[in-house]
Amino acid sequence: MSRRSLKHYLYVTIFGTHTRAGRLFDILLIIAILSSLLVLTLESVPSIASEWGKQLRALEYTFTCLFTLEYLLRLYCSPKPSAYAKSFYGVVDLLAILPTYLAFLFPAASSMSVIRLLRVMRIFRILKLVRYLQDSNILLRSLLMARRKIFIFFSTVAILVTIFGSLIFIIEGPENGFTSIPKSIYWAIVTITTVGYGDLVPQTHLGKAIASITMLLGYSILAVPTGIITAELSQEMRTHKTLVKCPNCSKSGHESDAIHCKYCGGELAEPNQRVVVNEGKN
Amino acid sequence: MSRRSLKHYLYVTIFGTHTRAGRLFDILLIIAILSSLLVLTLESVPSIASEWGKQLRALEYTFTCLFTLEYLLRLYCSPKPSAYAKSFYGVVDLLAILPTYLAFLFPAASSMSVIRLLRVMRIFRILKLVRYLQDSNILLRSLLMARRKIFIFFSTVAILVTIFGSLIFIIEGPENGFTSIPKSIYWAIVTITTVGYGDLVPQTHLGKAIASITMLLGYSILAVPTGIITAELSQEMRTHKTLVKCPNCSKSGHESDAIHCKYCGGELAEPNQRVVVNEGKN
Amino acid sequence: MSRRSLKHYLYVTIFGTHTRAGRLFDILLIIAILSSLLVLTLESVPSIASEWGKQLRALEYTFTCLFTLEYLLRLYCSPKPSAYAKSFYGVVDLLAILPTYLAFLFPAASSMSVIRLLRVMRIFRILKLVRYLQDSNILLRSLLMARRKIFIFFSTVAILVTIFGSLIFIIEGPENGFTSIPKSIYWAIVTITTVGYGDLVPQTHLGKAIASITMLLGYSILAVPTGIITAELSQEMRTHKTLVKCPNCSKSGHESDAIHCKYCGGELAEPNQRVVVNEGKN
Amino acid sequence: MSRRSLKHYLYVTIFGTHTRAGRLFDILLIIAILSSLLVLTLESVPSIASEWGKQLRALEYTFTCLFTLEYLLRLYCSPKPSAYAKSFYGVVDLLAILPTYLAFLFPAASSMSVIRLLRVMRIFRILKLVRYLQDSNILLRSLLMARRKIFIFFSTVAILVTIFGSLIFIIEGPENGFTSIPKSIYWAIVTITTVGYGDLVPQTHLGKAIASITMLLGYSILAVPTGIITAELSQEMRTHKTLVKCPNCSKSGHESDAIHCKYCGGELAEPNQRVVVNEGKN
Repeated sequence: MSRRSLKHYLYVTIFGTHTRAGRLFDILLIIAILSSLLVLTLESVPSIASEWGKQLRALEYTFTCLFTLEYLLRLYCSPKPSAYAKSFYGVVDLLAILPTYLAFLFPAASSMSVIRLLRVMRIFRILKLVRYLQDSNILLRSLLMARRKIFIFFSTVAILVTIFGSLIFIIEGPENGFTSIPKSIYWAIVTITTVGYGDLVPQTHLGKAIASITMLLGYSILAVPTGIITAELSQEMRTHKTLVKCPNCSKSGHESDAIHCKYCGGELAEPNQRVVVNEGKN
Repeated sequence: MSRRSLKHYLYVTIFGTHTRAGRLFDILLIIAILSSLLVLTLESVPSIASEWGKQLRALEYTFTCLFTLEYLLRLYCSPKPSAYAKSFYGVVDLLAILPTYLAFLFPAASSMSVIRLLRVMRIFRILKLVRYLQDSNILLRSLLMARRKIFIFFSTVAILVTIFGSLIFIIEGPENGFTSIPKSIYWAIVTITTVGYGDLVPQTHLGKAIASITMLLGYSILAVPTGIITAELSQEMRTHKTLVKCPNCSKSGHESDAIHCKYCGGELAEPNQRVVVNEGKN
Repeated sequence: MSRRSLKHYLYVTIFGTHTRAGRLFDILLIIAILSSLLVLTLESVPSIASEWGKQLRALEYTFTCLFTLEYLLRLYCSPKPSAYAKSFYGVVDLLAILPTYLAFLFPAASSMSVIRLLRVMRIFRILKLVRYLQDSNILLRSLLMARRKIFIFFSTVAILVTIFGSLIFIIEGPENGFTSIPKSIYWAIVTITTVGYGDLVPQTHLGKAIASITMLLGYSILAVPTGIITAELSQEMRTHKTLVKCPNCSKSGHESDAIHCKYCGGELAEPNQRVVVNEGKN
Repeated sequence: MSRRSLKHYLYVTIFGTHTRAGRLFDILLIIAILSSLLVLTLESVPSIASEWGKQLRALEYTFTCLFTLEYLLRLYCSPKPSAYAKSFYGVVDLLAILPTYLAFLFPAASSMSVIRLLRVMRIFRILKLVRYLQDSNILLRSLLMARRKIFIFFSTVAILVTIFGSLIFIIEGPENGFTSIPKSIYWAIVTITTVGYGDLVPQTHLGKAIASITMLLGYSILAVPTGIITAELSQEMRTHKTLVKCPNCSKSGHESDAIHCKYCGGELAEPNQRVVVNEGKN
């Protein structure tokens, strides 16, 4: 195999998902990421760390070596290494290995090693897999279409939380635990999101009335983001459905997992090809 | 009645729901399952067990005998006994009776007897009833259609929970109760799902800020699975509706509980027959 | 005014909502109901009862007299007094006055007086008002259409709650507060509905893992009833819209609050008449 | 620049959003509002107030002066000053500056200074910005269309909360913390909205059963407002979409962010013009 074809083969395997080797690589990578996350997590449990600390550290070094090798290979086989290095995943890939080396060089910076948990974001690579591409595109586009409505919703929640937080601060006051406005706003967030820790609760009658209104408001305005996303999503799904055309009779409106045209029976384009077409249009 | 016709009669009664006897059998079975669950539940309450223990155990033995008889009858009248024994319900039916016998033979294994509560899954048999078949099919198919979107949603939640869990672990640390990353991830799950037990709450200002973001995120991303399922469900319901055709004028689009065609007044196929047709198509 | 026309006038005023007097009566009635509820509620607060007890009791007697008068008038002017007395509202109306008389006759039964709070259900009468009739009909019909799906959902929740309750009972056990299976099922309900009181929390690692799964499940399956009701509701709203027909050009599809036909400009039937037509069809 | 044109220039800049200066003014205003809110919030934290109190107060006075200047300018350049002063935003603008002056004149009234936090409502001005106008209109109109259904929903919740509150009051009683009906209704609201502080929990078996029903009810009826708003919102979005017409080929049904007609390629009216047209129709 020539050097160029090797580079291309690596590229197709590591970055692509169309070949069998590419899919295998993706699956192995996800297993490695999940295992390394498990190791990092277990290392933080004092009782486990004291007993298995050595073995866990050895495993962690192994995973870091593997991820370093993978990073170098990606840099090597990428047609534009600098573009990859500056991309979102390129930075995440680097952040996933850097802390281990820094902790090795400067033992004092070991607390920084939690950054390694950002490795978890590498799991998003799974969305690259053909099966999930279409669905994650639909979800992302719905969120994108709804971004202004979501912003308005969050502004409204921020305003409500400030108003109810200051109200409870005046009514309850420091003697009942509401020592400052930021703390009262924290209480309002805990209440309006229906989390309700119970570490800070109103004691006076009026405070309880205000809390009740906050809860009922939080309970009902949850309906707004749901309504926004549902409306956008069902519109997006309907649009997407109509985009799939039969190459034989040109009729559209096929289910996204249909293989044959429901009007003439002609074979439809393969799902991953269809996705490419849609992406070109958007 | 010949042996063969008896076997067939039993099969139609025990497995089927079309005859009056079959429906009666199903209703009696569900009453027996619910009663035996009540007995098992009450047996676990110390104050009740010390007073009524004997009677409850006698009832439990009676139910186990009944369920054993039912299991043997099912094996006997099933056209393919081995297929039934290996099916999901076959295993559940066996698990519902086995622990009682094991506890009888090996008194030490009595703690295992909680497995008997898996009996509760036998209630799903109720979905076999014609009235619920159509609706449970629609629900199941919607969930099936949405499986990839739900998987993407859960991956995103898992990633968010890991990130916010590690963040709170760095900020709050063991002195405020966040003794390890798994425990911090547990806190993040309690917070992002808006459960909010309050057994673990942030104490520092920065921790409270991070907690507020986690809550608001959890509060809003709840909109995503709702949006997904609503969109799939309304599509499924629309599709299902159009599938019902009038045998007289061939026009479709009838309500799922319509009896007569709304265009020509011709009688529509019976609901259970329609269901069979749909199932054959899927 | 003859006796018969008086009876009819009373009937139209008390039971009807079309006349000005009828609407005024409804509004006064709702104010009286709300005031009497406030009186009952305040009476239960020890500090208020000790100071204002006498006045509150006097007010309560006044309201009871008014409601008794109203009940007798309803019986008098109703075309079929026995039908009214046996109807849902007839029973509620009686339950709203009976406890006060019983407490007067048998002072020992005063604890029973809380039943008077069922008076709150009389507020539903407000839905009789024309403006709300249409909307409450749409909501009710959606819930009715979705009743089987909601039943399946609740069965599934019941089964999940039993399974996770027994699991946590085995794992945590009485030493961590999970003293019986009913109590563990109570914990599972508190967790799966994302209420999260925090009076009962898992202490072991495995228990926390099980709790996390319960929370995530509860968090996501909330999407199912929302999906069901949204899908039914939007279908119901679309159907309802199409039912409104223009008496001039016979074209349908008008907004529910439209006054003129959007195709020919002809005046549409009045909303309350339209509702009657729909009710006749269903 | 003549006096009249200056007045007009100020009006376009301060009230309008079409000119570059207008947009810049809006952005600066929002930054000033957010900063002043931060100052007010920090002032309430005892530890910060004792150290930075002076500086924070100085900043607060600066912001009050700026807002006073802005208020006077708005009064000056508005074509109808009295109409502005009486409008919602006019009152909010006045309330945002008044308390500081009052606290200066009557130092005793300093507790009233929390009213200054109502300044947060000025943030809603951001919705005036063209990009958000359309989306906030759609959201507002959906809520407006759904107002009766939301009212019915809240009445039902109020009735449920009264019934379950009185039930738990009878069952648990003052010995378990449920000292009065208002407090029990507060518990019912905390439970039905799934907030679950845990400051008041049922202790008896029957109380826990009632609490479980309350939770399951609260968990499911959340689906109702979501369904209402989703259904209205998707209808509103569909209607809004169809209202956008191509001036060239007169075909409608364009995406709300489309610039060219998707049928003939003709340029569509600018978004803000389209909005004005819609508002005229409603």
